[in-house]
Amino acid sequence: MSITVVGSVALDSVETPLGKKEDALGGAATYFSTAASLYTKVQLVGVVGDDFPEEHIEFLRKRGVGLEGLQRRHGLTFRWSGRYRYEDINNAETIETQLGLFGDFDPELPESYREADCVFLANIDPDLQLKVLQQVRQPKLKVLDSMNFWITNKKEELTEVIKKVDVVLMNEGEALQYGETFSLVAAARKILQLGPKVLLAKRGEYGAAMFADQTFFFAPAYPLEVVTDPTGAGDTFAGGFLGYLSRAGDYSLAAMKRAVLHGSAMASFTIEDYSIDRLRSLTLAEVEQRVTDFAGFTSPEAEAVFDKLRLHS
Amino acid sequence: MSITVVGSVALDSVETPLGKKEDALGGAATYFSTAASLYTKVQLVGVVGDDFPEEHIEFLRKRGVGLEGLQRRHGLTFRWSGRYRYEDINNAETIETQLGLFGDFDPELPESYREADCVFLANIDPDLQLKVLQQVRQPKLKVLDSMNFWITNKKEELTEVIKKVDVVLMNEGEALQYGETFSLVAAARKILQLGPKVLLAKRGEYGAAMFADQTFFFAPAYPLEVVTDPTGAGDTFAGGFLGYLSRAGDYSLAAMKRAVLHGSAMASFTIEDYSIDRLRSLTLAEVEQRVTDFAGFTSPEAEAVFDKLRLHS
Repeated sequence: MSITVVGSVALDSVETPLGKKEDALGGAATYFSTAASLYTKVQLVGVVGDDFPEEHIEFLRKRGVGLEGLQRRHGLTFRWSGRYRYEDINNAETIETQLGLFGDFDPELPESYREADCVFLANIDPDLQLKVLQQVRQPKLKVLDSMNFWITNKKEELTEVIKKVDVVLMNEGEALQYGETFSLVAAARKILQLGPKVLLAKRGEYGAAMFADQTFFFAPAYPLEVVTDPTGAGDTFAGGFLGYLSRAGDYSLAAMKRAVLHGSAMASFTIEDYSIDRLRSLTLAEVEQRVTDFAGFTSPEAEAVFDKLRLHS
Repeated sequence: MSITVVGSVALDSVETPLGKKEDALGGAATYFSTAASLYTKVQLVGVVGDDFPEEHIEFLRKRGVGLEGLQRRHGLTFRWSGRYRYEDINNAETIETQLGLFGDFDPELPESYREADCVFLANIDPDLQLKVLQQVRQPKLKVLDSMNFWITNKKEELTEVIKKVDVVLMNEGEALQYGETFSLVAAARKILQLGPKVLLAKRGEYGAAMFADQTFFFAPAYPLEVVTDPTGAGDTFAGGFLGYLSRAGDYSLAAMKRAVLHGSAMASFTIEDYSIDRLRSLTLAEVEQRVTDFAGFTSPEAEAVFDKLRLHS
């Protein structure tokens, strides 16, 4: 039971309606690993520079994340700075991106990573995603994330990767952009016809929608009154999703539905604090409690009472 | 078991990505009555002019809708024309509104309407909503809808009505506007503190969210690949919601959760055709089938297969 993840390890500076945080631990592979390591063994492939604080390496090591594939080179770590506005809390406005060493990153998988059960291709250049797929042996599940930049600039290459994965995980807007449609069902049809078994569309505060042939599954988002920092919600969603599946060793559609609830619960914790800070102390029991809460949100038979929602007080 | 509804009866001209329809039967009270009459006795309060086709009256009468409170006067029926764009199918762009006789509408409830179990105050001037509340005896459930126009121009009067109802039913954007917040939980808190037991926020293609003290319930929308005409989705949602409750004679929170699913299913049928056309042949069994489907959308244990979602074909 292990997951190999390839993606960015970064230093983020974010500004949200509630405050600012400079040079915090960030990056898709970091968020993913921090979440998924609650469930299973994670092996990270990425690159950082001499400016990357040792304490972050130590944090990942203590969580049991495999770091053999994390290159530490001479130069600068990938840096991203962005801003979230109260009126559009789900969408970051990028202030600056400094690629640093990530600009000519060439993912090289250590021998021990190649036998992983699951591979998560976080949002990077589709050419690199393809290179990773060529290095793994026979994973039971291959999952891809992407973003508008690659859909706009490298759609053909992205399509080649999509043809080779089992699950496409994207923001709803990206799935619509890829499918050149305004209907998510139509986008799902286009993507599934390329080969993947599942499209998993992240919808921010509206939860997530999963499409497979003749299957539709919907997970709500956890209703939060305050969002501290939305950064990493999507990557920790992926971490909860794949972490659950890898731990269960079950990649059926039924398992994926439960995994979507774990992803949504995980994302809801992430945005309660800056960076990966809320996940430092998070336990699997807390995640499972929220997954149980979800049943109360959607089943009319559940007589669920939510202490956090004392709306009359 | 009966519902008294007050609101517009109109002639609509709409343009959608799929086509046009001129002078079709429309209006909030019409949509509501057409949907709710599948479940229970509905008594309509409204006004139409000499230009209103007799066949529409006949249609409502055949559905068993009480028309004693529908004033037929000399003048013009309320007319609305609007356009929906493919990229924003949930939001109508109003081309023209001709109030006609609706401009000085003064709702007068026939004696037989005053004992109704439920009252639905469709989206009209809050002063008129208040007038209706003064005429009913002791309904078990009072539900209000409204819109941005009244929130902007008559917030104080609207607040007076909100204080007197049990359920506030609004589009999510309207609830946020009323609550002067970007958090739906915060908006729910503000509205519930005025007195209502429930805020029911309609979210278009994202379904509906229901808030009560320590309760959150979420109904997804039915995943449709094609939307023919979104007009009336919100009012038929209300019709399914109140219709179910009135028929069940149960106004508990548990019943309301099931009612939300009926509302969401009803709205999904409405948008499959122009005007109220899909509802002409719709049966309660079809609505109940969609309500059952919803369980398959949200419960990981349900092994649900949806014929309409043959995405690999």
